[in-house]
Amino acid sequence: MKGTVLYGPRDVRWEDVSEPRIEQPTDAILRLPATCICGSDLWPYRGLMPIPAPAPMGHEYCGYVEETGPEVRHIRPGQFVVGSFATSDNTCPHCRYGYHSSCVRREFMSRAQAPWLRVPLADGTLVPLPEAPPPEMIPSLLACSDVLGTGWFAADAAQVRPGGTVVVVGDGAVGLLGVLSARQMGAERIILMSRHEARQKLGREFGATDIVAARGDEGVAQVKELTHGVGADSVLECVGTQEAMMQAIRCARPGGHVSFVGVPHEVRLDGTELFFSHVHLHGGPAPVRRYLPMLMELVLEGRIQPGKVFDLELPLSAVAEGYRAMDERRAIKVLLRP
Amino acid sequence: MKGTVLYGPRDVRWEDVSEPRIEQPTDAILRLPATCICGSDLWPYRGLMPIPAPAPMGHEYCGYVEETGPEVRHIRPGQFVVGSFATSDNTCPHCRYGYHSSCVRREFMSRAQAPWLRVPLADGTLVPLPEAPPPEMIPSLLACSDVLGTGWFAADAAQVRPGGTVVVVGDGAVGLLGVLSARQMGAERIILMSRHEARQKLGREFGATDIVAARGDEGVAQVKELTHGVGADSVLECVGTQEAMMQAIRCARPGGHVSFVGVPHEVRLDGTELFFSHVHLHGGPAPVRRYLPMLMELVLEGRIQPGKVFDLELPLSAVAEGYRAMDERRAIKVLLRP
Repeated sequence: MKGTVLYGPRDVRWEDVSEPRIEQPTDAILRLPATCICGSDLWPYRGLMPIPAPAPMGHEYCGYVEETGPEVRHIRPGQFVVGSFATSDNTCPHCRYGYHSSCVRREFMSRAQAPWLRVPLADGTLVPLPEAPPPEMIPSLLACSDVLGTGWFAADAAQVRPGGTVVVVGDGAVGLLGVLSARQMGAERIILMSRHEARQKLGREFGATDIVAARGDEGVAQVKELTHGVGADSVLECVGTQEAMMQAIRCARPGGHVSFVGVPHEVRLDGTELFFSHVHLHGGPAPVRRYLPMLMELVLEGRIQPGKVFDLELPLSAVAEGYRAMDERRAIKVLLRP
Repeated sequence: MKGTVLYGPRDVRWEDVSEPRIEQPTDAILRLPATCICGSDLWPYRGLMPIPAPAPMGHEYCGYVEETGPEVRHIRPGQFVVGSFATSDNTCPHCRYGYHSSCVRREFMSRAQAPWLRVPLADGTLVPLPEAPPPEMIPSLLACSDVLGTGWFAADAAQVRPGGTVVVVGDGAVGLLGVLSARQMGAERIILMSRHEARQKLGREFGATDIVAARGDEGVAQVKELTHGVGADSVLECVGTQEAMMQAIRCARPGGHVSFVGVPHEVRLDGTELFFSHVHLHGGPAPVRRYLPMLMELVLEGRIQPGKVFDLELPLSAVAEGYRAMDERRAIKVLLRP
């Protein structure tokens, strides 16, 4: 089959790759009706992460189970499933505490920008639907796999509460779905920091009540003004840079909660500033598996439409154009179909 | 009167200072039956913080109200009061959220290593007792002012819960009272990291169930072994150095809570390590005022005896010897009497 491989900065290719097959008795093979490109794929694409060898790409997926290994008990061929970008056995102590993305048997998925995919630890990683979903719901179910799960974790880790004031730093797909998540959790005021018109518009549709276009000190000052000098209860840092992290910490009130859900790139936190900021800080790779059943239910009930973050759809074979569109911020998030 | 002034590294003097008087209408003047030396006083004493000018020292206090300014309404002369090392108006938004040590009118106290003390914002800062306490309770009430309040915040910020597993990094007076606090909150297992016999003994008396003498990677490995490879639910970092902070973060399980309550000195946190550690992090100057009424009650009921951390008592005039004893770790904490 063909799949997506990153060779170097801005050099992504659609080329022959080996077909996935059952390797471990706990594996499953999925056929993917759709897949997508993640904001985090842009880090190596832009040369901001080393690419020591050609890297198969893609970690967001949902699809039909085609085959399972002999030790898979709960997932069956024919089911439609959604899984997390991090595999989990769902039984180890970390999984039981809800931190599936720190599972002792965790592997980070790749190779999902392709028509077929091998998923390790199928029983612990995949969540099946009772029946195949209507095709129009597939983008929103696909979003559960990472981008919505991560936005939801951002809101949860920032302790968004009914009536609370929330700031979202970052208007990528994760940030926008952080807005949607905060709205679902009952936040009263949701301030999206964004300077991009299309993203502001979708942010408002998802529930943002205020937009702050300024960044850095000026952005912080505007948030402080909007919160009567107090600062926000919850701040979701959905970028992963030093500037975004400091902006997030400085937007929170003393005792407020700051989450960070994008892999930080060369971020260093000064202990003294963190100390006197008095914020709570929590982040990491989103434990999507914890939230999957609930998020899939919200999608199936039609209560949320996270698939709206996909504003460009391409055939899988045009994956390189998809990367370009996201790199140049022409697209928020790209859906790929076989 | 005489008071304590730090001139430079290891140069602390007991010398003539101006007598405190009402300066603001919200001030109170206290007569102090006892005061003490804080672990944080050792940072400038050891030359690890700049001393641009001779610095009056001391920020832990309790005592008898001698005089109040014309706008003080709830504190009256003759009362016995305990206050926090940070003043607070107890009415601003941050105070109402329980973060009194980030009060918009906060001042950090100094000049308490003396027989008399001016306290700003008396109504918001001081908590009175219904009657003067028996003299033997004064050390434990004095401890509420900072060292116990800070240890309690460490346990609270690390979300110590009944049945939980707790690690305390640091066997100074704050760490030891972190142990006491964790015990009060119902922790099942309390692992104190200490290599000092007298401190280990007091730690066990306060409720430590295990002692780990090793530090760094080896200390972390021993904690992991004691927690069946999982890591601790709650870790209290009570030192303020890079080594202690990294040790604390690495001892926690994914999803666990790490608190830090000593002013960090040249601490830099790597964003990527923090991300993949999956811990919650919360710290800052302890909002002692939030806990004061409850802690004073625990002391008066005889349920806790935090004053046991004072293992050396000296006259105020011998304050320089007190600093030396703590600097050389001959004393855990020094009580000073006029």
